[in-house]
Amino acid sequence: MRKLYELVGTDPERPFSPYVWRTRLALAHKGLDAERVPWRFVEKEVIAAHGSEKVPVLVDGDKTIHDSFAIALYLEETYPDRPSLFGGPGGREYIRFFNSWGDVALNGGIFPLIITDILQLLDAENAAYFRSSREARFKMSIEDFASNREAKVDGFRRSLDPFRLTLRSQPFLGGAAPNYADYIAFGPFQWARAVSPFRLLNEDDLVYAWRERMLDAFGGMARASKGFSL
Amino acid sequence: MRKLYELVGTDPERPFSPYVWRTRLALAHKGLDAERVPWRFVEKEVIAAHGSEKVPVLVDGDKTIHDSFAIALYLEETYPDRPSLFGGPGGREYIRFFNSWGDVALNGGIFPLIITDILQLLDAENAAYFRSSREARFKMSIEDFASNREAKVDGFRRSLDPFRLTLRSQPFLGGAAPNYADYIAFGPFQWARAVSPFRLLNEDDLVYAWRERMLDAFGGMARASKGFSL
Repeated sequence: MRKLYELVGTDPERPFSPYVWRTRLALAHKGLDAERVPWRFVEKEVIAAHGSEKVPVLVDGDKTIHDSFAIALYLEETYPDRPSLFGGPGGREYIRFFNSWGDVALNGGIFPLIITDILQLLDAENAAYFRSSREARFKMSIEDFASNREAKVDGFRRSLDPFRLTLRSQPFLGGAAPNYADYIAFGPFQWARAVSPFRLLNEDDLVYAWRERMLDAFGGMARASKGFSL
Repeated sequence: MRKLYELVGTDPERPFSPYVWRTRLALAHKGLDAERVPWRFVEKEVIAAHGSEKVPVLVDGDKTIHDSFAIALYLEETYPDRPSLFGGPGGREYIRFFNSWGDVALNGGIFPLIITDILQLLDAENAAYFRSSREARFKMSIEDFASNREAKVDGFRRSLDPFRLTLRSQPFLGGAAPNYADYIAFGPFQWARAVSPFRLLNEDDLVYAWRERMLDAFGGMARASKGFSL
C-alpha cells in the first residue's frame, strides 16, 4: 500500500501543508490510493529514514519520493496510462514555471496572512520549533512578518491578476477540467482554509469561484477536510 | 503570400511592438514566411479594413487574424504538421496563464521603464497620438508614469523570480528548446531593446543568459533587428 506522510498539528484530521495538498490532489487525479500518515514538524527522524526533511514524502512500493513537484513528475512517469497531470509533454515543460509562480505569489503571498494562526494548531513543542525555524528564515519575529495583514491582502489579491485573467476564458488552469496547475494553485488556498479564518478572497472574485470548484473536485475531497468557512 | 502588419516609428527597419515580435517568432517556429508591412500608430484605417485597431494583424490567404494570442492559436490549429508552439494540447491550455503573466509582469513591468524612449522613435503626429492615448489610459502624464525608473527596475527584476527559478532547471520555458512561452516572454524584452538604452537586466541574471539565447534563435533573427546594445 502507498503511504503519504502529511503535516498535521494537534488534530490529525486537519492536514494543512500546501505541498501535501498538491500531492493528495495529484494522487486523486491519477486515481491512486495512499494511506495517510500524520506527521508533525518535530518528528524529523521519521522522515529522515526516507531521506527527507520535509513532507510530502510518498512511499510507493520500494520507491520513496519527496518534494511535491518531484512526486508529480514521478506519478506522471510511473502511471502514464492514468489521466495526465500536465495534459501531456508540452504541459510538463510549462508546469515548472507555474510551480515557481505558485511558490512565489501564492505560498509566499499567503504566508504572512495566516502564519500567526498556524501557531494555534500546534502543541507547545511544535509551536516552539515552528517559531524558531521561521524566525531564523525571515530574520524577524513572526509577529513582525505578519504585521499589517489588512494592507498586505490587497497586494496579494492584485498579484492574482494573471490567474484571474486566465479564468475569464477557462474554468480551470488546466482547461475544461483541473490538472496539476490547479493543484499547485489550490494547495496554498487549502492550507489557508485549514489554519485561518482570515478572508483571502472576495466573493465576486473569479478566483473565489474557481476555489469553490476545486473544493468540490473528487467528490468534495478538499471540502470534507477540516477548515474554516470561507 | 502571408502578410504581417508590424508597428514601426520613423524607421521601418526598427519594428518594436512586443506583440508583433511574439507573432514573428511564432511564424519562424512554424517555418512560415510573411511579408512584413510597416504600420504606424495613426494609420488606423489601414488595419480597420482588416477588422482590427491594433497590430499584429496577420493576413493568411483569405483569412485575417488579429491579436497575438489568437494568431498563435490559429497557427497551431492551421499548421498542425509543423512543430507545435505549445508542446501539444496540455501546453495549449497552460499557455493562457503564461500569456496573462507576461502581459502583467513583463509588458506591464517594462512599460514605465522605456516609455519616454518610445517617443524618440516617432514622428510628431505619431508622438502626439501616442502621448494622448497613453495618458488617457494611465490617467497621468507619461513623465509621471515613467518617473523614478531606477527604483522601479528593482521591482521589475524581483517580479522575474518565478521565471528565474524555472531557468535553473531548463534553458527555455518550453524545455530544451524555445516555444511560444518563450516568445511571449521575449517579445517585451525585444520591444525594450528596440526602443531604449535603459538596462533591464544584470549580466549575471539567468534571464539575461536566456535573452541572449533568444536573440540567437532562428539564425539570430531578433539580434539582426535594430536595437540598442544590452
